[in-house]
Amino acid sequence: MNLNTVRYILGTLLIVLGVAMVPSLGWSIYYGENAINAFLYSIVAAIGVGLLLRIKASLKKDLGLREGLLIVTLGWILAGIFGALPFVFHGSAATFIDGFFEAVSGFTTTGATVMNNVEALPRGLLFWRSFTHWLGGMGIIVLFLAILPGVGAGGFHMFRAEVPGPSVSKLSSRIAHTAKTLWYIYLGLTVLQTVLLMFAGFNLFDSLTHTFGTVATGGFSTRALSVGAFKNPAAETIILIFMALSGINFSLYYYLLRKQWDRVYNDEELKFYLGVILVTTLLIAWNIRGLIPSKADLLRSSAFQVVSIMTTTGYATTNFDLWPTFSKMLLLLLMFFGGCAGSTGGAMKQIRVLILSKYCGREMLRTLHPKAVIPIKVGGKPVPDDILRNIMAFSFIYIAAFVFGSLFIAMLGQDMITSVSSVAATLGNIGPGLGSVGPESTFSEIPQIGKLVLSFLMLMGRLELFTVILCFTPGFWRGVPILGTVPKHSRRMNI
Amino acid sequence: MNLNTVRYILGTLLIVLGVAMVPSLGWSIYYGENAINAFLYSIVAAIGVGLLLRIKASLKKDLGLREGLLIVTLGWILAGIFGALPFVFHGSAATFIDGFFEAVSGFTTTGATVMNNVEALPRGLLFWRSFTHWLGGMGIIVLFLAILPGVGAGGFHMFRAEVPGPSVSKLSSRIAHTAKTLWYIYLGLTVLQTVLLMFAGFNLFDSLTHTFGTVATGGFSTRALSVGAFKNPAAETIILIFMALSGINFSLYYYLLRKQWDRVYNDEELKFYLGVILVTTLLIAWNIRGLIPSKADLLRSSAFQVVSIMTTTGYATTNFDLWPTFSKMLLLLLMFFGGCAGSTGGAMKQIRVLILSKYCGREMLRTLHPKAVIPIKVGGKPVPDDILRNIMAFSFIYIAAFVFGSLFIAMLGQDMITSVSSVAATLGNIGPGLGSVGPESTFSEIPQIGKLVLSFLMLMGRLELFTVILCFTPGFWRGVPILGTVPKHSRRMNI
Repeated sequence: MNLNTVRYILGTLLIVLGVAMVPSLGWSIYYGENAINAFLYSIVAAIGVGLLLRIKASLKKDLGLREGLLIVTLGWILAGIFGALPFVFHGSAATFIDGFFEAVSGFTTTGATVMNNVEALPRGLLFWRSFTHWLGGMGIIVLFLAILPGVGAGGFHMFRAEVPGPSVSKLSSRIAHTAKTLWYIYLGLTVLQTVLLMFAGFNLFDSLTHTFGTVATGGFSTRALSVGAFKNPAAETIILIFMALSGINFSLYYYLLRKQWDRVYNDEELKFYLGVILVTTLLIAWNIRGLIPSKADLLRSSAFQVVSIMTTTGYATTNFDLWPTFSKMLLLLLMFFGGCAGSTGGAMKQIRVLILSKYCGREMLRTLHPKAVIPIKVGGKPVPDDILRNIMAFSFIYIAAFVFGSLFIAMLGQDMITSVSSVAATLGNIGPGLGSVGPESTFSEIPQIGKLVLSFLMLMGRLELFTVILCFTPGFWRGVPILGTVPKHSRRMNI
Repeated sequence: MNLNTVRYILGTLLIVLGVAMVPSLGWSIYYGENAINAFLYSIVAAIGVGLLLRIKASLKKDLGLREGLLIVTLGWILAGIFGALPFVFHGSAATFIDGFFEAVSGFTTTGATVMNNVEALPRGLLFWRSFTHWLGGMGIIVLFLAILPGVGAGGFHMFRAEVPGPSVSKLSSRIAHTAKTLWYIYLGLTVLQTVLLMFAGFNLFDSLTHTFGTVATGGFSTRALSVGAFKNPAAETIILIFMALSGINFSLYYYLLRKQWDRVYNDEELKFYLGVILVTTLLIAWNIRGLIPSKADLLRSSAFQVVSIMTTTGYATTNFDLWPTFSKMLLLLLMFFGGCAGSTGGAMKQIRVLILSKYCGREMLRTLHPKAVIPIKVGGKPVPDDILRNIMAFSFIYIAAFVFGSLFIAMLGQDMITSVSSVAATLGNIGPGLGSVGPESTFSEIPQIGKLVLSFLMLMGRLELFTVILCFTPGFWRGVPILGTVPKHSRRMNI
């Protein structure tokens, strides 16, 4: 384990984090708020500790897979710890754990909050909350679409197919190029939505914060009643569309820019994603038809909550906790579907659900024809066996994390619907759940230890389980004996 | 499709069913009840239709896999239809669907009831209800341990390992021998428990009916408050032990009889099963310690509900719907575990849960060592890949059936806990759920269409999903083109 390089990268991350707080400080100064000192202290702390970590540390060119996993996990945890400081120093977080929960919820693009009186928070803090979404979303896109496929890292090779075969020598320049393109796409979506929201009547502050929450599929709002508080159908429609766009694989925008229309047109995950949105929107609209008289409002309201929950954003235009059980259970189910692979959306991801269904269909067919060889295809191409195995295991571990998480929250005395939905909503990086953690409530009533576990689940969900879990196994640290031959390019990464 | 043979076997089944009603008729005559005519009509109907089906039908030696699946599915459905007749003719079932639900619940060893006033039912009908359990349990044991492994039928080859390699010529005699031995074991357990219950103070009628419900992991009682109504700790303990025994793979008793102690001692599924019982019993006892002052009562109560739910029996000695959320959720989780493979227990089965966990562990390890070859072993032997795939698919289809079933019941207007638990309890052949279908309630409030769907789920769960689902696919009937080479012994079965 090359801890020098780990320290160097984490230190750099903290320095960047400190600098990233400056715009929020700016808003606080502009509005003359009492959060100025909180930001100053936080910036000093982040940059200071960052510099300390970098003392005598250096960046080695060769970085092992395990160092990579450790950096990703620790990086996200450190971001949560230092991102919490503004809330803690300002006093708007009752405890450090509250602040940590809020910051982790931000960086993991979850959007679950413990702030009971969000309208009373200083603008600087509100901006910081939303900005953590934006930073986290950017981090995830680059991590999953540029870095991890490039190094062929274990649990993530399902996305490797998107990138041409790895070539160790050109790796570093290709990663840099892909990352830059993705960054422009992300920035483009952000600028476009901000402008559109301002046209719809939002001020710059609300436009920016809600755009950050949308493109990162985060979900923090500046109002306790979320997007619904603005009573602005035009803005709701804009946010609805951009939530749907942010749940799509960002590679597809890359292809669009390169005019490879057929790769977008033939994308099976995209079709599946749009199909699920259409079907569930209609089902819920039918189920709640008695609650909303106008057809247009009915469809918009149904589509908004469906897209918001499924893309794991978590904005709300209505209190869906008051909907009939069928609609609530459908939303709970969508919490597991999540965005497309390579989007900012969390949870299990559409492609996994799609492949799972095909896998089950194939095994049924095999009952009739036990020796038949039936490949599973996505977009006409067969899915390799090791990816299938990985998807199966991922899905079960996801379900297991959900089950044991829910049991833990229930043990703390929460009712069943709250326990189940709070875990589904944090593990899947959605935000609001049902019951006591519904869209018009907050997570503030959950006991401190519960908030800590839910924060951990947010991290686990965001980093696709394996990364985080592996860092907590003894084998990871002991230097497990290599059980087979590992090709060099899948163990080492160039920086 | 050889429909002649299908008719012949189903006709025989109905004749046997008619004869099986005679003991219940006997109880009705003995007690001079008003159910005598109901039984007479039912016996005539079952035997009459059975004889009609057998007209011009004959038993062919060669039977295809598809004929086999069809016979099993239709056989269980016909048993439900004709088993319902005594309830319908007597008038104790309000509708035919109610009677069908009750009979399917009996034959599938579920034990979910729609009878609101079970104490008012004639003894003959109560006996019939419990006897359907016993017949169904016997049928499942023979089906899964003698017939299906012998023919290497698709979805079931996980049990094939129990039987020495198939040899087409000797198949029929080996099946007959295995079936006979299993029958003696089943009968032995039945006689033993009946005698013990009579020693504990139960009369012959209550001893027999509760024994049928126990060894078949069924759960119908002669009292609305189930076993708890008798307030008999000795009887509770006997039933608790026999529930646990009935959840064990019956092959192990076969090995015991042949003095192969090490095969029992080294059985990994058995250890896992006992471990789960121990851990959950202690967890629940800790969680409900405030409700029951005496340590012995506390442990017995906790163990009883744990074993009853997990073995999918469904007896209760207390209203666990009043327990804290954590305990209720733990029971809900156990509803998915079920008995060991080759027992009368339903749900997913211990061995599948065990292999699932190993599978997930292996894939995690693979993240660190992508090219490592790590076999999954049970009892020291590696599990073949096709069995692993089958287990994965089975588990996901099981979860999918649970999710969509719950959504359907919610659509009928039931609350979330009732929807979820009624489906988990029927699909897993347990019996009582939580909420409106809790241990001191019945399924009578569920709308008719809901009862029909739940009956279907009981059948699906009991026949391990694939059998039933495949019979409802067009491909099954169209004569799907054979996609690969199928060895003869896995497609044909000798009778």
